[in-house]
Amino acid sequence: MELKGYLEETAEQVDKLIDRYFGSPCDDLSRASAHLLTAGGKRLRPAMLLLAADAVNKGSSMDVMPAALALELTHSFTLIHDDIMDGDQVRRGVPTVHTMWDEPTAILAGDVLFATAFEFISLADAPDNARIRAVSMLARTCVEICEGQHLDMSFEHQDDVTEGDYIKMVEKKTGALYAASAGIGSILAGGNAGYTQALYQYGQGIGMAFQVQDDLIDLLAESDVSGKDRASDIREGKKTLISIKAKEAGFDLGQFRGNLSSGEIDKIISRLEDLGVIGEVKAVARDLVETGVNRISILPPSVERDLLQEMGRHFITRSF
Amino acid sequence: MELKGYLEETAEQVDKLIDRYFGSPCDDLSRASAHLLTAGGKRLRPAMLLLAADAVNKGSSMDVMPAALALELTHSFTLIHDDIMDGDQVRRGVPTVHTMWDEPTAILAGDVLFATAFEFISLADAPDNARIRAVSMLARTCVEICEGQHLDMSFEHQDDVTEGDYIKMVEKKTGALYAASAGIGSILAGGNAGYTQALYQYGQGIGMAFQVQDDLIDLLAESDVSGKDRASDIREGKKTLISIKAKEAGFDLGQFRGNLSSGEIDKIISRLEDLGVIGEVKAVARDLVETGVNRISILPPSVERDLLQEMGRHFITRSF
Repeated sequence: MELKGYLEETAEQVDKLIDRYFGSPCDDLSRASAHLLTAGGKRLRPAMLLLAADAVNKGSSMDVMPAALALELTHSFTLIHDDIMDGDQVRRGVPTVHTMWDEPTAILAGDVLFATAFEFISLADAPDNARIRAVSMLARTCVEICEGQHLDMSFEHQDDVTEGDYIKMVEKKTGALYAASAGIGSILAGGNAGYTQALYQYGQGIGMAFQVQDDLIDLLAESDVSGKDRASDIREGKKTLISIKAKEAGFDLGQFRGNLSSGEIDKIISRLEDLGVIGEVKAVARDLVETGVNRISILPPSVERDLLQEMGRHFITRSF
Repeated sequence: MELKGYLEETAEQVDKLIDRYFGSPCDDLSRASAHLLTAGGKRLRPAMLLLAADAVNKGSSMDVMPAALALELTHSFTLIHDDIMDGDQVRRGVPTVHTMWDEPTAILAGDVLFATAFEFISLADAPDNARIRAVSMLARTCVEICEGQHLDMSFEHQDDVTEGDYIKMVEKKTGALYAASAGIGSILAGGNAGYTQALYQYGQGIGMAFQVQDDLIDLLAESDVSGKDRASDIREGKKTLISIKAKEAGFDLGQFRGNLSSGEIDKIISRLEDLGVIGEVKAVARDLVETGVNRISILPPSVERDLLQEMGRHFITRSF
């Protein structure tokens, strides 16, 4: 099976479930909760959960479908609240929830999805003990995501953010939910402790690489490919692995805060390439993926394990 | 045992647990999460959960202590987010979280407590199946609380709020978490379906009465007793059972929005008493309590059942 086909098929299944449960909102708060969820998305976390389940116990993915949805709900909840905090106006090509409604409604819409995630994870067809461990893991993960977002925000007012700080932030903000996706898939499908840990660490590593790749895409990809404004991180003065490594090399990207022409961006990219920064950042992402992918080599050989490994590599080759 | 003594003892136990887990915050987000939680509170929801557990299975309350804490965490989470939405500056005698930090931190602090509630409920010493049902009930309850808060906010822009609308809002916003407190206590302690349902409905009814009593206290109690500004609901034009019943009787409290002198408040109270509004509202609260309290008469006789019934009556006799 090809990864692309698998991801498309899974996204379709998840979209169907989302449409069934959230497609006919009957009041304003339900509409706000469903808004971002029904606006599309790659559904990568559900796909990872389902692959992890099948990788440890072939055929179990159908049983854990509600948990796959729970992960997407959790992701959507974090996006709604993050968009309020970051003051972002557009997400997935639609106005953000707090823009379309208001902040109070957006806070509640996020809270509703958060609570609903725990309802759905409880609905997985798995032994009670596994479901309780999945609930615990999801809860701990949500605390970590909040800590990651808080760190990310605190970096804005900090001039001395180190690579270590950044890696810790990414581990929590992005790595944790991918880790939980793979880990919960294993737990619910009856994977042993070793498999669960391996899958957790796999998800964490490639999730972190996902974020580093996002930072590279923000700088390097043309807007019409990425769907985002080019170099928005530099214009907003955001701390990324790129800006941290550039600063270490004596090139302070903080000076470019504000408007930047396309020509100026090209010049910055050349300079970063000459300094070896782009190469180093790519190497970090590659190492994270390779370490993650190697972790799951202890799993029995299967199509699903191969797809998971391919997914890891896809995370750092994608351009959107 | 006296209710007062029991509540004080339980509050002390809960405070100790809170201090152990949240008393030494090691970063800014933890401090924000702990802020309101460690500022005191009557801990009525944990007390209700523990009493419900002992009422269906004597001696089980120690086992379900983490769940009692989970209910207090959930309550604290809703307060932090509500304070942002309502723009409130002070709570429990301390500045609200978004006032002392900022809105993004307050959103995250609430989210952290929300997630931690699910971690703690999973830690209760109860059969896995009971814990899963408790998780589901807490999750569903949180959705209802959000719906209740959303209804409450929507009432602000609505002139035709009926008693039915108000009762539905209170059932979700305040009744649901008390219902879950008693219901989860029963589930975790092994109460049968009949006991659990009875306790759930008991909690719901007296929880709703609690809110109606809060509205009465806002109007009738002197500030130095209630700790709140007298008649703040009328000054802010809030829809309450009092304002709805007054309007039905041809007395529109909406006209008094803004500043009110103590003398004017006294005149409004007299008028409401003459119209029979105060008496009717008190009767609604009394009926809710009596219906709730009667529900649990199917439980085997015990000190704890008596305390629960006394607690119900306390909810409408308290003045703060």
